Amino acid sequence: MSDRLVIFDTTLRDGEQSPGASMSRDEKVRIARQLEKMRVDVIEAGFAAASNGDFEAVRAVAEAVKDSTVCSLARANENDIRRAGEAIRPACSGRIHTFIATSPIHMEKKLRMTPDQVVEQAVKAIGWARAYTDNVEFSAEDAGRSELDFLCRIFEQVIKAGAKTINVPDTVGYNLPEQFAALIRSLIERVPNADQVVWSVHCHNDLGLAVANSLAAVMAGARQVECTVNGLGERAGNASMEEVVMAVRTRADLFPVHTGIDTTQIVPASKLVSQITGYPVQPNKAVVGANAFAHESGIHQDGVLKHRETYEIMRAEDVGWTTNRLTLGKLSGRNAFRSRLQDIGIVTESEEQLNAAFARFKELADKKQEIFDEDLQALMSADVVDPAFEHYKLLSLRVCSETGEVPRAAITLGAAGEELKAEAEGSGPVDAAFKALEKIVSSGTELLLYSVNAITGGTDAQGEVTVRLAKGERIVNGQGADTDIIVASAKAYINALNRLGSEVIRLDPQGETV
Amino acid sequence: MSDRLVIFDTTLRDGEQSPGASMSRDEKVRIARQLEKMRVDVIEAGFAAASNGDFEAVRAVAEAVKDSTVCSLARANENDIRRAGEAIRPACSGRIHTFIATSPIHMEKKLRMTPDQVVEQAVKAIGWARAYTDNVEFSAEDAGRSELDFLCRIFEQVIKAGAKTINVPDTVGYNLPEQFAALIRSLIERVPNADQVVWSVHCHNDLGLAVANSLAAVMAGARQVECTVNGLGERAGNASMEEVVMAVRTRADLFPVHTGIDTTQIVPASKLVSQITGYPVQPNKAVVGANAFAHESGIHQDGVLKHRETYEIMRAEDVGWTTNRLTLGKLSGRNAFRSRLQDIGIVTESEEQLNAAFARFKELADKKQEIFDEDLQALMSADVVDPAFEHYKLLSLRVCSETGEVPRAAITLGAAGEELKAEAEGSGPVDAAFKALEKIVSSGTELLLYSVNAITGGTDAQGEVTVRLAKGERIVNGQGADTDIIVASAKAYINALNRLGSEVIRLDPQGETV
Repeated sequence: MSDRLVIFDTTLRDGEQSPGASMSRDEKVRIARQLEKMRVDVIEAGFAAASNGDFEAVRAVAEAVKDSTVCSLARANENDIRRAGEAIRPACSGRIHTFIATSPIHMEKKLRMTPDQVVEQAVKAIGWARAYTDNVEFSAEDAGRSELDFLCRIFEQVIKAGAKTINVPDTVGYNLPEQFAALIRSLIERVPNADQVVWSVHCHNDLGLAVANSLAAVMAGARQVECTVNGLGERAGNASMEEVVMAVRTRADLFPVHTGIDTTQIVPASKLVSQITGYPVQPNKAVVGANAFAHESGIHQDGVLKHRETYEIMRAEDVGWTTNRLTLGKLSGRNAFRSRLQDIGIVTESEEQLNAAFARFKELADKKQEIFDEDLQALMSADVVDPAFEHYKLLSLRVCSETGEVPRAAITLGAAGEELKAEAEGSGPVDAAFKALEKIVSSGTELLLYSVNAITGGTDAQGEVTVRLAKGERIVNGQGADTDIIVASAKAYINALNRLGSEVIRLDPQGETV
Repeated sequence: MSDRLVIFDTTLRDGEQSPGASMSRDEKVRIARQLEKMRVDVIEAGFAAASNGDFEAVRAVAEAVKDSTVCSLARANENDIRRAGEAIRPACSGRIHTFIATSPIHMEKKLRMTPDQVVEQAVKAIGWARAYTDNVEFSAEDAGRSELDFLCRIFEQVIKAGAKTINVPDTVGYNLPEQFAALIRSLIERVPNADQVVWSVHCHNDLGLAVANSLAAVMAGARQVECTVNGLGERAGNASMEEVVMAVRTRADLFPVHTGIDTTQIVPASKLVSQITGYPVQPNKAVVGANAFAHESGIHQDGVLKHRETYEIMRAEDVGWTTNRLTLGKLSGRNAFRSRLQDIGIVTESEEQLNAAFARFKELADKKQEIFDEDLQALMSADVVDPAFEHYKLLSLRVCSETGEVPRAAITLGAAGEELKAEAEGSGPVDAAFKALEKIVSSGTELLLYSVNAITGGTDAQGEVTVRLAKGERIVNGQGADTDIIVASAKAYINALNRLGSEVIRLDPQGETV
């Protein structure tokens, strides 16, 4: 019997550190529910001490999720650990994940502490954490560039202090698989009480090796992998959960482990995370890219027909690629709507919210024949779920665009019961609409990114627009979906403005990569 | 002194097998010039026997490129090899890359040949190829699932016959690094004449391990890696050139090899390939993703300031990430325009083409203050470079869109001197424009993909739209760029229609993955 490989998902914590990927509490809960459905073992929901918003989000996830362990990150200090402990209190199973840097360069330049002080602090941190839960994880930040002797020493001490999982991160994505595996192997051999804990790895993808490093570590004895949906995360991201899970499953002949993941939930999770964060998945991404199971060349198609196994090592349906299922249409009623929302993990908090959402659904169904799950996800964006989120509201928009003429837009916004109107010209209709919006709000933001994706196929597909705005140090993504791309663009811009103004989002992102 | 690792780029061959990524001859030449500028050792330009279009493209690349070896793929039969040999004839340095399947499953189910017949055919193929060039590469298709004894036998024979490079592909992306390295090590040890050739690998990314497998093979003795820009390629793609190159460079302390690549050309190459194929690069892609060098969290920013090396293992400028350079503006003249085009590798073939392009440039400069290299690339899409490509031409477009009203578009197309007009309603202005277009052309195509990216920053950025159309077995991508997103969409749709009708594109894609 092979060992269980613990899948520790950090989409909501490390994934959220992608520029502009900050999520609201409700968005985190929605993703957490999907992770639970996938049977992820541990969900790292955030960094409770970073802000009140983060604290609330971790607590909301801890309340919503029953089957997965819910974890909060915490630096190795008393305040961070207290916040983490309080945030995970409602969880059926909660974990505190505390960390401190152990590489000479980090200890000296960032922490300004001696190695002895670092060990002492780490041991204290485990003690503080154990006041809240027995399930304590310890990470040595920048372990990949730390000295082996020092790692052995600090790990032995924190295991004695009661840590149950020891995580070895490659914070800067600098390691190669063979070398990283050798590190894990040495640690397990040399730490005297190594058998009392689960060994974990957390790899970054700067050289494109996060998955390979994670898998090499598993071969060397690691039994937990920290990863994210779509490989989301700072810079080039973290190890992709879907690649780790499918490699272990597809090569069950070589791996001494299995996961508990329901792989058919992989593609729905990928789409949900992409939709909520506004981070697209490139078509040639393994497992979850749109082309991952597409065969182009004539010879290959012939090969596939002659004998399926010649070119396919995984089946598309195993990872949840199915034809978009028609879920609702024009004639669907309120109960069918509510029940479908529940199926895809969306819980409305009041009758008013449900009614508002249902009205939007009816409006969409008038324009679009078939309504898919993706359409519902887009429809239920933060604005609908949480009206407090919606300071500005789009009341009307008119644009005209004609080759040879300067495009013009007229817009009316609602804000605190008032109607605000403006008109503007632009280099295109979207530019004109954004300029009209700025005439009203004067936000002082910079547009960093504008992108559009069709949510589903067909010419009546909704366009989903992502707008990324920066103001000083803050970066937010806004999303808007509509069958009209100009309207979707205006909605996305307004959504970003509302997020900028909203207190749901932490004001000073203080996430830390482990 | 470390060995030279040969970088064999197959963006134009295996990369082109991504659905809809078919490139015209001129597009291939443009990318090949950029690859040459990067100092790629070998450019696989296509599969000459696949179609006349492919043949012409390989020949055009062979004529244009001076410093890199130009290669054509060929199955192990006389006709394929003759076509490949003729196509590479103009090259300063040419290579023929021939292949045959060697796994039991492929030999039996696809080739329907005995192992003896396969060896005989491979040896004959080397002989045929040597009539054209001494630079012959042999690939064992699906080597990853082939029997080691058989691989040793066939490789020994083709080396005797004169092959200079032996390529070991992992066609279905099934291997793990350690195991793939062991295969390469065994082959080099067991094939008696192994020292007479360069050993090469070609890895696919189905489990997210293409780069890791390639690097593990290099550690085991491989001295050529086949890869693509952005990891483009069938399904989950090939090994990413930029990741392979930067891993070898960043970890020069561990790798026994170096490459000749000018890494500062990596990001320009990535952008060019993305723009021409319509395949976006996800932000969290290593090296070339928009976030690859972005640091979000507060603690990290602090770390970077305190000591740069704490979080950075590569520098953004090393891979060509520089601020967009302002290249041209409203007042730039015809000569400045022509010379900037030449700098970025675009050669206009006649004065008329240059004049047409310059007129478009002036039109754009009226709408957009700063014109970047990316804008020029978009401006010089296939339509401009090759007027034969432009059957349908957008003459005028008018759309109006107002919340609460049904969007309406009126369009005028030029085709063979005629003006064709239509109006239509749609669920959005883009849908209305596409429906109006279809009223004119009745193409019978299906819209598979619609996506938009801003080419550069700023609110007056051009939108670049990619439209993917399918008709029967054929799939084409069309691109259109304009400061007006609706106009860009219509241009992209028309570009796709023109590509569908154009003979420049092979009618029956017969690419084969090695």
